[in-house]
Amino acid sequence: MSSRPIYLDYNATTPIDRQVAEAMTPYLYEEFGNPSSPHPYGVTASRAVELARRQVSGLLGCRSAELVFTSGGTESNNMAIKGVAAACKKDVHFITSAIEHPAVLEPCEYQGSLGHRVTILPVDSYGRVDPAEVEKAITAEMTLVSIMHANNEVGTIQPIAEIATVAHKLGALVHTDAAQSVGKIPVRVDDLGVDLLTLAGHKLYAPKGVGALYIRDRVRLSKFMHGASHERNRRAGTENVAGIVGLGKAAAIAGRELSDTPGTASHLRRMRDRLWDGLSARLAELLLNGHPDERLPNTLSVGFRGIKADDLLYELWDQVAVSAGAACHSEGVTISAVLQAMAVPPEYAMGTLRFSTGRFTSAQEIERAIDAVVAAVNCAERTG
Amino acid sequence: MSSRPIYLDYNATTPIDRQVAEAMTPYLYEEFGNPSSPHPYGVTASRAVELARRQVSGLLGCRSAELVFTSGGTESNNMAIKGVAAACKKDVHFITSAIEHPAVLEPCEYQGSLGHRVTILPVDSYGRVDPAEVEKAITAEMTLVSIMHANNEVGTIQPIAEIATVAHKLGALVHTDAAQSVGKIPVRVDDLGVDLLTLAGHKLYAPKGVGALYIRDRVRLSKFMHGASHERNRRAGTENVAGIVGLGKAAAIAGRELSDTPGTASHLRRMRDRLWDGLSARLAELLLNGHPDERLPNTLSVGFRGIKADDLLYELWDQVAVSAGAACHSEGVTISAVLQAMAVPPEYAMGTLRFSTGRFTSAQEIERAIDAVVAAVNCAERTG
Repeated sequence: MSSRPIYLDYNATTPIDRQVAEAMTPYLYEEFGNPSSPHPYGVTASRAVELARRQVSGLLGCRSAELVFTSGGTESNNMAIKGVAAACKKDVHFITSAIEHPAVLEPCEYQGSLGHRVTILPVDSYGRVDPAEVEKAITAEMTLVSIMHANNEVGTIQPIAEIATVAHKLGALVHTDAAQSVGKIPVRVDDLGVDLLTLAGHKLYAPKGVGALYIRDRVRLSKFMHGASHERNRRAGTENVAGIVGLGKAAAIAGRELSDTPGTASHLRRMRDRLWDGLSARLAELLLNGHPDERLPNTLSVGFRGIKADDLLYELWDQVAVSAGAACHSEGVTISAVLQAMAVPPEYAMGTLRFSTGRFTSAQEIERAIDAVVAAVNCAERTG
Repeated sequence: MSSRPIYLDYNATTPIDRQVAEAMTPYLYEEFGNPSSPHPYGVTASRAVELARRQVSGLLGCRSAELVFTSGGTESNNMAIKGVAAACKKDVHFITSAIEHPAVLEPCEYQGSLGHRVTILPVDSYGRVDPAEVEKAITAEMTLVSIMHANNEVGTIQPIAEIATVAHKLGALVHTDAAQSVGKIPVRVDDLGVDLLTLAGHKLYAPKGVGALYIRDRVRLSKFMHGASHERNRRAGTENVAGIVGLGKAAAIAGRELSDTPGTASHLRRMRDRLWDGLSARLAELLLNGHPDERLPNTLSVGFRGIKADDLLYELWDQVAVSAGAACHSEGVTISAVLQAMAVPPEYAMGTLRFSTGRFTSAQEIERAIDAVVAAVNCAERTG
């Protein structure tokens, strides 16, 4: 990978951990059985799926029977949101936030188009939802509060445990999209107090196309995927055995690394903070987006005043792989909905890059990235 | 695999072709990019997905823009059936058959529970739907006819082109679940005349957890999976890149093998017919289920009179991997819905095994399987 750009876009997707790919390999070759089949090929596949379920439930601190494997975070979110409405058979109130991923906002808005009530809560300038706002928003209808655990763009961590406490006091259910937090910080369903939790494989060094939904025992949820009686009759469709095996292995590795001393978070934070220190020492007019402390240890969203993010991406193309917080097109610049909701000043928002570090980020990569970003910023034209 | 049972259950799932697994491998290691990312990692992944789309569209004879990748056949069926209803915003009439896979029947029945009309057509003793019955069933409402191309249990091939002709004459849309036929016989969307077609990777020597839905240009279909604007804003969720690459490669191989002389079908049929000849020469009181000619070349469903299928599975456990057409439990024997709909005499249905051959089935395996099945039948207790 030495001739390829330095990868600092772990929040978009992680590489698959080599141990994960190796765990999957038998299931791409000789262990090809359908877990539903009544013969040894099927039994081997079925046992592999159940081992993975125990591995993932170990990471989340839930019972394995409370986990359903899905095709990814988007399906898990769709299943949670649509499943609560379908099971309720009455009007449901969905309370969510302005900085959710489209995989939560769009299903909520779709429920709104069907006549359900949808409340989208604002966030403060750090991107935080106020639990008191959640409490005020809850109404007499059956209510599902769906607030993400950590934001994908700026890394801000929400006070989910407090939100769950106020929501449960008023009889609401709580779902959290934890796609970005699982594996970076400890995520235990009982600590968070949530009823439903979304997990995505490809943010956790497992492959794309696999995820899970945690469903607390007492939660009534209708099927999203109808068909045969897979996953204890909760989610139809032949199991993605190799992907599920990968997710299980990734969960086992994440659990081990989080409990190591120094653990995952320490490495992620050291790399990220070194990047920020280097950039802020050598460049003026920077804005750090997101909460200063309550933030994922790997995420650094930086606004470069008066510069177009696309110009920076262009300069960094073959050097550093990152994401932008704004996109240029023929009608002008569109600032991301997250930065807009946080009221980031437009002159910084339009020039925002998201850097996200990961398990394989090295100090040397960070030093090279600093040099490249400083050069790109110095080369870019400042407007205004 | 020499010490493992002979695998004659290709209709449950195929092994992944070694060339397919090898095509996927780079996407499990160094090519891990998210196709939505604006940097070289993302572009590489995106190009791989689009190559796969062209490979699959080449097999089906459609434009690549008419294909959406999904998590498998079940999702494709859910998307087709629920998507037509959601796009119509009025009552829809779903016409399907009694021998569909649960992944079609259950979504149709779910639409029925929401107030839509559902008609389940009978089949004849060969498992065929009569196009005249389809014509008679179509009503003035917006109608979706969903009839499988080939049945998974008995292999009977439906007259889809005729069904599409009568349905289109009356303004109905036509969906077919072609999970079992693609790769075994030529499946071209224009020859079939369908508007929507389901394909499942794991029946085509690609992995589990990936599939596709063909959507003819003029068809209005609402999203099933809401979220970000993947797949031209038709199906949200980060693409299962490795799985999609595998599906593309599998489609390319299937296209090549179908056009070879002698092609895939010839090998599958030779193996299957040798199995039938061997069994029927050495055993009495057999019934071949399904259509004698209009049948998948690899599928052999055989009823052994007066024997419990579970007893045969037990005997064959470590010798031959097959499926049963009936299952024993504490309350008695449940005969599969397909065999019931075909009115297979119960004394044969309860003792039905499904054998399905595949690309890797050898003549030697067939000879050994014949010996094992003959011994199992002779050892099993006949009732009645």
